Amino acid sequence: MTRALTVSIDAMGGEAGPGAVVSALLKTIQRHSDVQFILHGDEAQLKPLLARQPKLKDRALVRHAPGKVSMEDKPSHVLRRGKDTSMWHTIQTLKSGDADVAISAGNTGALMAVSMFGLGIIDGISRPAIAVIFPTLKGQCIVLDVGANVTASEEQLVDFAVMGEAFAHAVFGLARPTVGILNVGAEEQKGNDGVRAAAQILRDSNLPMAFHGFVEGDDIAKGTVDVVVTDGFTGNIALKTAEGTAKLVGSYLRQALKRSLLSKLGAVIASGALQTLRRKLDPRTQNGGVFLGLNGIVVKAHGSADAVGFASAVDTAIDMARADINARISTDRSAIAAESAGAKVGEL
Amino acid sequence: MTRALTVSIDAMGGEAGPGAVVSALLKTIQRHSDVQFILHGDEAQLKPLLARQPKLKDRALVRHAPGKVSMEDKPSHVLRRGKDTSMWHTIQTLKSGDADVAISAGNTGALMAVSMFGLGIIDGISRPAIAVIFPTLKGQCIVLDVGANVTASEEQLVDFAVMGEAFAHAVFGLARPTVGILNVGAEEQKGNDGVRAAAQILRDSNLPMAFHGFVEGDDIAKGTVDVVVTDGFTGNIALKTAEGTAKLVGSYLRQALKRSLLSKLGAVIASGALQTLRRKLDPRTQNGGVFLGLNGIVVKAHGSADAVGFASAVDTAIDMARADINARISTDRSAIAAESAGAKVGEL
Repeated sequence: MTRALTVSIDAMGGEAGPGAVVSALLKTIQRHSDVQFILHGDEAQLKPLLARQPKLKDRALVRHAPGKVSMEDKPSHVLRRGKDTSMWHTIQTLKSGDADVAISAGNTGALMAVSMFGLGIIDGISRPAIAVIFPTLKGQCIVLDVGANVTASEEQLVDFAVMGEAFAHAVFGLARPTVGILNVGAEEQKGNDGVRAAAQILRDSNLPMAFHGFVEGDDIAKGTVDVVVTDGFTGNIALKTAEGTAKLVGSYLRQALKRSLLSKLGAVIASGALQTLRRKLDPRTQNGGVFLGLNGIVVKAHGSADAVGFASAVDTAIDMARADINARISTDRSAIAAESAGAKVGEL
Repeated sequence: MTRALTVSIDAMGGEAGPGAVVSALLKTIQRHSDVQFILHGDEAQLKPLLARQPKLKDRALVRHAPGKVSMEDKPSHVLRRGKDTSMWHTIQTLKSGDADVAISAGNTGALMAVSMFGLGIIDGISRPAIAVIFPTLKGQCIVLDVGANVTASEEQLVDFAVMGEAFAHAVFGLARPTVGILNVGAEEQKGNDGVRAAAQILRDSNLPMAFHGFVEGDDIAKGTVDVVVTDGFTGNIALKTAEGTAKLVGSYLRQALKRSLLSKLGAVIASGALQTLRRKLDPRTQNGGVFLGLNGIVVKAHGSADAVGFASAVDTAIDMARADINARISTDRSAIAAESAGAKVGEL
């Protein structure tokens, strides 16, 4: 690869529009001097935006896409009729090898469908997963799957562990991430057949991860492990329950601080600190989700991401591309398959 | 029933010990003039505690139980060897009809096993469930199951809806509670087969509830519905994820307020308000869990409940007994069974 690391960007996907995307890229080039961009979308909007940013001139290319996927479009509709959209073009540019990673803040279901159709799944992985980065008492952890699948077999949970471990390696720089499977208790006999079987496979495996065993819901925020593995049904509900709870606590705090003149005064004096807290709880500053298990790296920025949020998602994408995450996933998955085949021979 | 409403109490169950239980009952008698108690446990500890409280003298009876279930005891062990424990006696007193409701702050798994063994399941209900009351932006909602079962069929989800609706009627006084099934999206086609089939049965039913359809994880804290129905695996993880998130936000808040002299000053001035917030997020002030679906009302106070928390759990127990919750569950379950039978006849 002689060209610089290239990010394929759906410039029309998010609620904040292409202006926020361009502002995000100005942040990105401050942090990464050797990255370039291909922006897909309406060139009548994009070209004037870029023309005003001389720093991006030599590093960002516009490719015109007349269509746009809306948040309401069904994935099946986009697959049939969405070939002219900025989202479709974004993924095709990754598929063709013109880019190393793709990013969109658009409709999650459509992006997953277009990505699966365009890129296909890594050999040996049964289904892709969506991973997110959660804040914890210790820093951050990865949770997956948070919604690509509504059920997960033991083999899929093992796939998710492999993909999560590779993601933790890529974005946290950990040589040997700790991995736990989400369950209703930490003891080995707890939970359903799927989680117990997956835990047994991971316990017996020889992967570059420290398998912790089972973790519970409160271990996510505690930061007990680097990677929390679960099925997409439970993971989606855990993610949204956490979001809802954080908003509830924020609302309680505002109510409490408004209750008396004294508490209002205290809030005014501590407003800088409360602002810091608000930023920490704000989804715009978070990374969105990452699609793992596809033959290509796709990052889903939050639909309401502003320039800060989009730039953070671009950072994640660059980290993943640099760490060659998919090579690690393939190697680890093959190792598990070989161990499993070896174990079967041993039983004869 | 000529005797007063009687609460059978495991006085040895919680971490705070029998002293907290006696303090809790002093609160209860201020709110309920016509309730009496049977306390099970070590009479050498209990009798002196009660002797110091003349207000409880005529209303609280001690029944000696030499044994005690620990938090580490396995349910199967307690079933085989726990017949001398305060927990066992507490449930037996409910079974015999000497009490109207039972309460314990002890080991949840053991309490469920002893309760199922002692009381049996309501006719027509397939499995009991554990329900908890969550705080919401609008007030409170009920979530069940949070851990009695690790899977749930469509019929069980329907049972949980019936039991949750009866619980909301009993403790919130609602004639027609709103009920939602927890899912990964609000649209009818979302989720797995179980939640879709359960939703169809509830949509077609004629129960005293307003069936809302599907709700998502963040709808719990939003208070979108009065009752959130889910399987025990997902419910347990949602509950603990919410607890963990609330603690995380609290920790962020403390960190933020310590960061500068000004923010520390603000925190001191607003300390009353911050104290109010802390109380709202404190599990001691919450109700613990309620076992639904058994032939008898069993309330599980939080293991670390202090007098305030235990008194709150006793209040919930009294509300449930007064509302005759089990009669409502039986009636509603029979109605669904009859509708289902009628529908099958209609298909012939």
